[in-house]
Amino acid sequence: MRVLGIDPGIAIAGFGFIDKQGHKLKPVQYGCIQTEAHTPPEERLIQIYDSAVALMDKYKPDSVAVEKLFFNRNVSTAFAVGQARGVIILAAAQRGLPVAEYTPLQVKQAVVGYGKAEKRQVQEMVKMFLNLSAIPKPDDVADALAVAICHAHSAVLVQKINEAGRS
Amino acid sequence: MRVLGIDPGIAIAGFGFIDKQGHKLKPVQYGCIQTEAHTPPEERLIQIYDSAVALMDKYKPDSVAVEKLFFNRNVSTAFAVGQARGVIILAAAQRGLPVAEYTPLQVKQAVVGYGKAEKRQVQEMVKMFLNLSAIPKPDDVADALAVAICHAHSAVLVQKINEAGRS
Repeated sequence: MRVLGIDPGIAIAGFGFIDKQGHKLKPVQYGCIQTEAHTPPEERLIQIYDSAVALMDKYKPDSVAVEKLFFNRNVSTAFAVGQARGVIILAAAQRGLPVAEYTPLQVKQAVVGYGKAEKRQVQEMVKMFLNLSAIPKPDDVADALAVAICHAHSAVLVQKINEAGRS
Repeated sequence: MRVLGIDPGIAIAGFGFIDKQGHKLKPVQYGCIQTEAHTPPEERLIQIYDSAVALMDKYKPDSVAVEKLFFNRNVSTAFAVGQARGVIILAAAQRGLPVAEYTPLQVKQAVVGYGKAEKRQVQEMVKMFLNLSAIPKPDDVADALAVAICHAHSAVLVQKINEAGRS
């Protein structure tokens, strides 16, 4: 099962593809989509959408997990991040990919086992789970991989519950 | 010049196409895109995007004007509205249509001539400018037409400034 995790943003959107093979997680590709500050907002949305489409069509994930935010520094930023999320979720939905959303609390619980974990702890666990030599930079990439891991773990859990139901 | 005005939202997005012929404004088509509450968010985004695309391709506007919000009841709503705005702006940008954004203050100033105008005053002016027999319902439709009128007026102003510059 291949999961695409995304930490959406208008200036920088982190992405991470990981494969779940049994109980093992393997990084496939990760990085970020960046847009220039002085580009018109509609042009930035096209760039984000086109990049998301290209990534999904190249790495063919089975599902997509996106960080769900309820707060932000300000509401204007929330609108802008919402717009970026919108076009990324659209790209996934147009390809028939299931989209899961996780709050930062759920991500921390799934990755560190503790909802109030520090950012650094989450990043260390991402490095460990994926057997990386260093913490991926910038933070948006590590965050995207954390959401992907959270989703992969949830999928394991769902599978176990299904198996228990069948036995 | 044909303008498409949009009041974006995830449950209901108002739209209004108007033609500017000289100094006269003429309504072409208006209404709203609605999505069901219990539909998954990604499905609602596809519905909004597909509807926006169908409307733009049918009524072929020359430009698109969208209400720009800086505030909202809560940030969670701002994310959701942002996502709807994102896919609508994407649809416009993919068609090469210029996208203008206006704050509610700018819309009120352009339509009523007074930034602190009441909603009802704006609606009455929309009815008058477009020579309608009644105020369009729901409010989202009247709001979309108000943004379109605001944009048409701004375009008149820009044209006048350009003409003054040439004389």
